[in-house]
Amino acid sequence: MSKKQLRIGMVGYGFMGRTHSNAFMQASRFFDLGYKPELSIVCARNRERAQAFADQWGYGGVETDWQKLVARNDIDLIDIAAPNDMHHDIAIAAAESGKMVMCEKPLGRTATESRAMVDAVRKAGVPNMVWYNYRRIPAVTHAKNLIDSGKLGRIFHYRAQFLQDWTISEDLPQGGEALWRLEKSVAGSGVTGDLLAHCIDTAMWLNGRIENVTAMTETFIKKRKHNLTGQIEKVRIDDASAFMARFRNGSLALFEATRFARGHKALYTFEINGENASLIWDLHDLHRLQFFDHHDEGTERGWRSIHVTDGEHPYMDKWWVPGLSIGYGESFIHQAADFIKGLDGDPATPTFADAHETDLVTDAVLKSAETGQWEKP
Amino acid sequence: MSKKQLRIGMVGYGFMGRTHSNAFMQASRFFDLGYKPELSIVCARNRERAQAFADQWGYGGVETDWQKLVARNDIDLIDIAAPNDMHHDIAIAAAESGKMVMCEKPLGRTATESRAMVDAVRKAGVPNMVWYNYRRIPAVTHAKNLIDSGKLGRIFHYRAQFLQDWTISEDLPQGGEALWRLEKSVAGSGVTGDLLAHCIDTAMWLNGRIENVTAMTETFIKKRKHNLTGQIEKVRIDDASAFMARFRNGSLALFEATRFARGHKALYTFEINGENASLIWDLHDLHRLQFFDHHDEGTERGWRSIHVTDGEHPYMDKWWVPGLSIGYGESFIHQAADFIKGLDGDPATPTFADAHETDLVTDAVLKSAETGQWEKP
Amino acid sequence: MSKKQLRIGMVGYGFMGRTHSNAFMQASRFFDLGYKPELSIVCARNRERAQAFADQWGYGGVETDWQKLVARNDIDLIDIAAPNDMHHDIAIAAAESGKMVMCEKPLGRTATESRAMVDAVRKAGVPNMVWYNYRRIPAVTHAKNLIDSGKLGRIFHYRAQFLQDWTISEDLPQGGEALWRLEKSVAGSGVTGDLLAHCIDTAMWLNGRIENVTAMTETFIKKRKHNLTGQIEKVRIDDASAFMARFRNGSLALFEATRFARGHKALYTFEINGENASLIWDLHDLHRLQFFDHHDEGTERGWRSIHVTDGEHPYMDKWWVPGLSIGYGESFIHQAADFIKGLDGDPATPTFADAHETDLVTDAVLKSAETGQWEKP
Amino acid sequence: MSKKQLRIGMVGYGFMGRTHSNAFMQASRFFDLGYKPELSIVCARNRERAQAFADQWGYGGVETDWQKLVARNDIDLIDIAAPNDMHHDIAIAAAESGKMVMCEKPLGRTATESRAMVDAVRKAGVPNMVWYNYRRIPAVTHAKNLIDSGKLGRIFHYRAQFLQDWTISEDLPQGGEALWRLEKSVAGSGVTGDLLAHCIDTAMWLNGRIENVTAMTETFIKKRKHNLTGQIEKVRIDDASAFMARFRNGSLALFEATRFARGHKALYTFEINGENASLIWDLHDLHRLQFFDHHDEGTERGWRSIHVTDGEHPYMDKWWVPGLSIGYGESFIHQAADFIKGLDGDPATPTFADAHETDLVTDAVLKSAETGQWEKP
Repeated sequence: MSKKQLRIGMVGYGFMGRTHSNAFMQASRFFDLGYKPELSIVCARNRERAQAFADQWGYGGVETDWQKLVARNDIDLIDIAAPNDMHHDIAIAAAESGKMVMCEKPLGRTATESRAMVDAVRKAGVPNMVWYNYRRIPAVTHAKNLIDSGKLGRIFHYRAQFLQDWTISEDLPQGGEALWRLEKSVAGSGVTGDLLAHCIDTAMWLNGRIENVTAMTETFIKKRKHNLTGQIEKVRIDDASAFMARFRNGSLALFEATRFARGHKALYTFEINGENASLIWDLHDLHRLQFFDHHDEGTERGWRSIHVTDGEHPYMDKWWVPGLSIGYGESFIHQAADFIKGLDGDPATPTFADAHETDLVTDAVLKSAETGQWEKP
Repeated sequence: MSKKQLRIGMVGYGFMGRTHSNAFMQASRFFDLGYKPELSIVCARNRERAQAFADQWGYGGVETDWQKLVARNDIDLIDIAAPNDMHHDIAIAAAESGKMVMCEKPLGRTATESRAMVDAVRKAGVPNMVWYNYRRIPAVTHAKNLIDSGKLGRIFHYRAQFLQDWTISEDLPQGGEALWRLEKSVAGSGVTGDLLAHCIDTAMWLNGRIENVTAMTETFIKKRKHNLTGQIEKVRIDDASAFMARFRNGSLALFEATRFARGHKALYTFEINGENASLIWDLHDLHRLQFFDHHDEGTERGWRSIHVTDGEHPYMDKWWVPGLSIGYGESFIHQAADFIKGLDGDPATPTFADAHETDLVTDAVLKSAETGQWEKP
Repeated sequence: MSKKQLRIGMVGYGFMGRTHSNAFMQASRFFDLGYKPELSIVCARNRERAQAFADQWGYGGVETDWQKLVARNDIDLIDIAAPNDMHHDIAIAAAESGKMVMCEKPLGRTATESRAMVDAVRKAGVPNMVWYNYRRIPAVTHAKNLIDSGKLGRIFHYRAQFLQDWTISEDLPQGGEALWRLEKSVAGSGVTGDLLAHCIDTAMWLNGRIENVTAMTETFIKKRKHNLTGQIEKVRIDDASAFMARFRNGSLALFEATRFARGHKALYTFEINGENASLIWDLHDLHRLQFFDHHDEGTERGWRSIHVTDGEHPYMDKWWVPGLSIGYGESFIHQAADFIKGLDGDPATPTFADAHETDLVTDAVLKSAETGQWEKP
Repeated sequence: MSKKQLRIGMVGYGFMGRTHSNAFMQASRFFDLGYKPELSIVCARNRERAQAFADQWGYGGVETDWQKLVARNDIDLIDIAAPNDMHHDIAIAAAESGKMVMCEKPLGRTATESRAMVDAVRKAGVPNMVWYNYRRIPAVTHAKNLIDSGKLGRIFHYRAQFLQDWTISEDLPQGGEALWRLEKSVAGSGVTGDLLAHCIDTAMWLNGRIENVTAMTETFIKKRKHNLTGQIEKVRIDDASAFMARFRNGSLALFEATRFARGHKALYTFEINGENASLIWDLHDLHRLQFFDHHDEGTERGWRSIHVTDGEHPYMDKWWVPGLSIGYGESFIHQAADFIKGLDGDPATPTFADAHETDLVTDAVLKSAETGQWEKP
């Protein structure tokens, strides 16, 4: 085959290591791409586990030091699927060594971190992307297309929430490999960076920039046992975070994320209300887009439940037949495919620069939660 | 006021006595009618209970013998809300005495009974109607309008079911005032006449006549204590009844009713699939009509959930404001209002003659369940 | 019958005049009450229309001056179904004349107005109530019972929204009889008093007092033709209003109301998340309560869609049989019945004093929208 | 690695060739299996297309004659993803050459065909399976587990439907590579073998054997252009097929499949009602199982919407985190994994023998549609 090589060095073998590895492998099965991704090296501190992961996924080898990985000549792309506190250093080193860089979200623990990362990839001129995968759920991409077509008209309202319930138990500890999302030094923040960041990325993609925000955060369980120290320690991340916003286009918005909404596992929903039409989406039924079109005949108007599984819907010509759904994992496959396509054309988004904008908003949210004032990103 | 009197003699004070009494009273509040209904006399064997009912609802008096009621000169309309075994005699006597007659469904316990009732009202030339109330749920009426407009095109499929679960317990007795629906001599049949009759009335109204049927019935609990005798006796009604049918317009149909579908209280649903559009309705959310229009733009097609509560929707200009729903009881109010309007114009349906057609189908269903053959109504 | 008289003087014959009149009449049909409500006098400036309304609903007479109505000796209860700017004067005069007073919501245009009204009914010692009818939708009452039972445990989150879309068109004028809700001098505010007030009343009933709020409001259409002057005039009410809040029990809340959410007619929803269970309700399907119980067996957990139509559910033993729903109008019937029952026992709520608490919150919301600060009610 | 080889010879590269190829590849990524499946050879008449498919999916080589494929020594398993008229010959030859055989459904065009295929695999003693993939949608497997646990108690009702709308247009031709499903000589039957077969397989797995059936079928479009001849020819397959049945456990059933239900793409649903509990599933939202448990407290009973995405749910520990769904393709992955696991233990089902039982039912359905009588499988 005349396809170009794309040799991937993956940092991390956790949940995201799996979704990314699967994404690259499946992208070449289901999409017609100019590059053939190869799972070359997986890097993790624990060699044994790294090797087991490599065997399962077909990686050609392992490294235990990410600096060695970055320095190798036989790698084209560094993909960072490690915890948030490692994003900054690895990404900058990878860029400086001239490699393409993909990074899990959020890009930085703070906008200051991600600012430096943006500068690094710009200076190096390397392709870069952040895995805000929800843009590429077909129903979400379809929403983007409908908005861009002008069907909604002037936008009045945007709402998003990301509700989970997995940290309600007081017995859940914090920290360590499994629960680094509860440790501020590693994660940067709690649900603000973990969940709201997704909501903000989608929102700005669909509805443009955010002008200002007013926020509140809460840590319901004040102390938890720490997995590394074994001690009961103060919890420093936010269990819940909500903010109101005004977009630059004049629309009003409400955003909320929490891990304390009993009954919701991963209820990421958004709604956008325009002058002429509205849209609602929900991750729990990710293949459906709710669409209300005021131009429908009066007595027949109703929210349409569009089952976004036809060949004409975004990405769906690559999969099965109408009515048959795909899942969460496929959003990463689409993103990998789009990144690769972008290497020979317009770069795919969100780039590091786009993701830095999201970090500016999450920083403003956290600041407003402290000041009680409206803050600008 | 210049409104004409409409003096009502009501037979029965049970569930249906209440819905009918309410219907007449509310019709004059919410509709502009040429007649003013008056709750004149309620008739029931038990004078004390009849009087209590009269006091609650404002009836002017009571009778304990329906023959005396029918013979009175100060009554214009006899409304039969008594068990099925009384429909035939009362209706015929009422017609013969020149009174308008309204009757609960099913019209007869058999088509033979209802045939005689049709003949009586025809001979007497008196206005008549059967309380198949579901036609006048606004969403159902709206479905009728959409079908009549031709939006659906050629019809391929019709489905209806009426699922309940209230007789599953073996400890439930049969017979007597409360449970006459389980006694064949009173009810005529089980779910066939009680529930399928509703499905058939709506179906023929929406989709025309039925050509032939093949059916199965079942009595899951074979014996129950009888409330009147105190003995364990054989259950003679059908607990479940299903049939397949071909309509004269060439469409295929499935019908099912049961009191053994755990989890469903009164799940009356129908669906109709046409060449160009389809409709689904469900009594449990009676204010919604699901509508799929193939003429919608391809990637935006989806089942529309029409909240049938706008002023432009059938009957809804008489009620509240858009988005605010009405309930089950209002379907009877609409029927009373339409009956009264029909006195000065085209008679409202379903008439006795229409309801007799339904009895012909239920008779064919019960016959087919015995013969195992396709039968014609 | 030995029932006591309850002679009602109704002020207003609009949408609310109808719901209230219907409520009193139906309450005595479907509930067993110690008082028999009588529709005695309806009062409105336009005598002709008042008389037509009186004829339709069976009022014994009409007045065109509310002060004459209040002064009559043959009236026991003044029910205020007139626009918001009339609530204060009529209510205080009614109380001073020793009559029971019922009033549409919001109680005052401001908390200052309602403070005086509370003082008046307290001083007079007269029964009083405000028509926050949504408390008495059976599913909402059932939610209250579940919360009070302790099933939810510690509460973390509360969310409410009331979304409409009827004022999006720029061609819609403001003011006058039909559109007084768009005129600040009559309505007091826009959606804050009209819609958020409902959300706040329910929220404080279910979840207790609100500690503080931060809010934003918007008027999307800045100028509209005024119905009375015929001129294009500035719109002074809020088209949309949203706020974040902290309840005294430590839970976080988001509230939003708008008339610019295309596709929603009257989407009043609330959700409450507790440690052990959660509840969701939605006015568009008002007979359903969504309930998630973490105590269900792990693999069988799911949101339960409770069809609140069983005889054991609040108020439903007064209506039909399981599975058959009631509508919006019935919530007023329940409230009328409860008010009357409360005359001989514990007074029904919300009283004027309760409704004044809601006005304190809406005042804080409007203030915060100006200051950009967190404000206390 | 010490994993055993499992060298696959795939016949067919269409829709099912893709799902099966993906299944084997992904099974080894997401499951821990004793065998490592290898995509060895793909076989199809068109060498060029076969080679393109081989390149895309990583097959080691191609054959254009299935008899050569079956004769090769370097193949362990023949997987038949070719049209129905090829199943019989290939499967028998594969068994006779001692190879494992997997076959798309339906197993035969008739039960006579599949009877011979069952005999062949039995005689050869080779592992065998039919790709009735819907058993392994996690929500369906969970339904099986709940039924087997006894939670439902005595079963009263079973309902299934598989509704599509893709052949409504009269302009759609029949026959040839793309539309062999409309040609009786290739497909065997229309929706009976294509769609009802799925419903029957699931039903007998969940609810046991079927005692007898009465059926109706219809061909709405009588003539279509034939892709191979270019002539307008009679359509010989059934566009719609429905039947009523009695199961051996005494429950009643309705089954229906059609390609003429406007608005439904692939609406495969089933419902089962037991004495104590009921279940509903729907392919359009395949990750949800509706569950009603009568043992829940009376006023809190409701249909639970179980989002079958927890680690404790069938297969879901292999995928993402709670709340994140998988799709249609994964059901094949699960089936491939189970087949491979079964090689070292209890063979996975449905075997050829199981699938033959389904063919007996579809044969009885087609016969009853002709005779108008109840027929036994």
